[in-house]
Amino acid sequence: MTPDPVHADTAPFTTADYAARMAAAARSAADAGLAGLLIAPGPDLTHLTGYRPVDTERLTLLVLAAGQDPVLVVPALEAPDAAKAPGAGALTLRDWTDGKNPYGITAPLLDVTGRFGVSDNTWALHLLGLQGELPTTSYTPLTDALPMLRAVKDERELARLAAAGEAADAAYAQILHVPFAGRRESDVAADLADLLRVHGHSQVDFTVVGSGPNGANPHHEAGERVIERGDMVVLDFGGLKHGYGSDISRTVHVGEPTPEEQRVHDIVREAQQAGFAAVRPGAACQDVDRAARAVITEFGYGERFIHRTGHGIGVTTHEPPYMIEGEEQPLLPGMCFSVEPGIYLPGRFGVRIEDIVTVTEDGGRRLNNAPREMAIVD
Amino acid sequence: MTPDPVHADTAPFTTADYAARMAAAARSAADAGLAGLLIAPGPDLTHLTGYRPVDTERLTLLVLAAGQDPVLVVPALEAPDAAKAPGAGALTLRDWTDGKNPYGITAPLLDVTGRFGVSDNTWALHLLGLQGELPTTSYTPLTDALPMLRAVKDERELARLAAAGEAADAAYAQILHVPFAGRRESDVAADLADLLRVHGHSQVDFTVVGSGPNGANPHHEAGERVIERGDMVVLDFGGLKHGYGSDISRTVHVGEPTPEEQRVHDIVREAQQAGFAAVRPGAACQDVDRAARAVITEFGYGERFIHRTGHGIGVTTHEPPYMIEGEEQPLLPGMCFSVEPGIYLPGRFGVRIEDIVTVTEDGGRRLNNAPREMAIVD
Repeated sequence: MTPDPVHADTAPFTTADYAARMAAAARSAADAGLAGLLIAPGPDLTHLTGYRPVDTERLTLLVLAAGQDPVLVVPALEAPDAAKAPGAGALTLRDWTDGKNPYGITAPLLDVTGRFGVSDNTWALHLLGLQGELPTTSYTPLTDALPMLRAVKDERELARLAAAGEAADAAYAQILHVPFAGRRESDVAADLADLLRVHGHSQVDFTVVGSGPNGANPHHEAGERVIERGDMVVLDFGGLKHGYGSDISRTVHVGEPTPEEQRVHDIVREAQQAGFAAVRPGAACQDVDRAARAVITEFGYGERFIHRTGHGIGVTTHEPPYMIEGEEQPLLPGMCFSVEPGIYLPGRFGVRIEDIVTVTEDGGRRLNNAPREMAIVD
Repeated sequence: MTPDPVHADTAPFTTADYAARMAAAARSAADAGLAGLLIAPGPDLTHLTGYRPVDTERLTLLVLAAGQDPVLVVPALEAPDAAKAPGAGALTLRDWTDGKNPYGITAPLLDVTGRFGVSDNTWALHLLGLQGELPTTSYTPLTDALPMLRAVKDERELARLAAAGEAADAAYAQILHVPFAGRRESDVAADLADLLRVHGHSQVDFTVVGSGPNGANPHHEAGERVIERGDMVVLDFGGLKHGYGSDISRTVHVGEPTPEEQRVHDIVREAQQAGFAAVRPGAACQDVDRAARAVITEFGYGERFIHRTGHGIGVTTHEPPYMIEGEEQPLLPGMCFSVEPGIYLPGRFGVRIEDIVTVTEDGGRRLNNAPREMAIVD
């Protein structure tokens, strides 16, 4: 019997794990014709080294360049913390003190005519500093150069994502028992955050509670509106557990829905199933979007599905690959992403249903298994 | 009698306030020879518009260019939230939908041969997108072009900073009554966070508890070490209240200090006083650093004061101006920054004492007034 992945190994990653990831990234960079990768604090650095510094105006930069071992340029004050990172044993620290030019310290590590992939979220301050120091270098965002750098998850990463998904499912099961009518959206959002933490999340990234007309704005979070009987309520919440993300949406109803509300929910549910059914190795990301969108369009709501169908998830709750028209990237086993179609009726209500899905050898597997039918709450 | 600034107006800033800030920033940009300013989500955008979106790979960018009204480029999904920002009435929203090229939408707003100031923390992804779209534009970080854009605070901002400082002082007074010995640093840090919130902070940015040898690492936060009798403990904490920052450090002792510990504390306290005494309009930022450093050097600990003396504070807890050797920027009335010398004895203990100080017409005024002598805790 296959072990339940939820209960698989979530032991900390080792120095050897990080060394292997850095070596693989360097190889991918060389294959893409780059002289190297420059990685700023953020999810790429977390993935490659386990180091999670606060990102500030002081330069911290991992340099993965051809023909040299990994070097982490780091402010002297932060060097003791960097040295404790789990991947620190696989790289050399090069520290710099306040008042020195950190770009001058980084420059000798770079091929002066090289083209480098740079993490998307690197500060402009730092990119301009490097461009000024080495005017004949050039740069490309990591998302353009190596968009799939973190996209394919290994078994141990999948175990973490499955555990995060199971925790989100458990939080959803419990939120159905709290009172909705007469409470503010922000009260229910606070309950969701508590439940995610109860189920092992170390970080809560978002807790959307979009009631009635607020549900029609897909980026509404949770506000002071008091939820009323008769409201549709979009719930969309997630965060990090064991360093990996959860993200689930369900749309519930306070009391009995109208036939129209039930119909819109049914359409979104069918669209979500169609998106999931399109997941298999070799399909393109845009095929998942098209499959979900086709259902909504067929029922006449195409103009009311105003966002892409999904986004990747890993050490962040929002990353490549994106399930969007025009994204021809083929799906690969181990990729994890959301499938989250929605219908938004301005001024009235919205419906969104979302699961995290991973690509298997022959199809897809949901990492969220909470019931998708419309739950009735009080 | 002058009203106590702590109790002065902390009513929300208005559309007119934000319009005036944007106009002033545009004038400063023109004076600096720039074609305009490009402002990404973060403290600059908060200061100029009151809008605080989450910063993602989707471009949000305020364009303040000569000869045109302010324009905020914003993802269509986020446009409803942007429209609710207090400064939204003073700008035009230009939205773009997923799948479109946001740099192509931004380009017509820019002088194709212009030089633009760009917020330090703008993502490299976005800067490279603009550079690619308009290869004859050039860019400079806002910190280089207009480092003092947010540095001089008006009376209403000073009232908020004073209120935040008073809250931090009150939190410090109360932390002296919690048990230290036998508890983990992280327990005391949690107490500090609770106290900041009790005293009106909406956000806690850091709660450093550096006990014994951990105090000798100025960037140590708070860990699992159990505090012992005989430890020096560096406390350094702050966050945001009414949208403006607090940041205070005091070093306490668990039980009676040794003569050496008392002496090191006395030196740091004298250095902090010397730094404060150097604050006056027209002095250079580096003069504050020099004054504090001179005391520590005179007593033979110069090599053990391993960071700059201070940093600005406002809508963030860490921003220009920096009190550091080489920074010749003259102090101006209304500037607010920390004065925080320290001595760090590796493997043994550290001492840091920090107040926020504002420049007045004829000197400086502390926004922290908690006692600076070494407190004895249990």
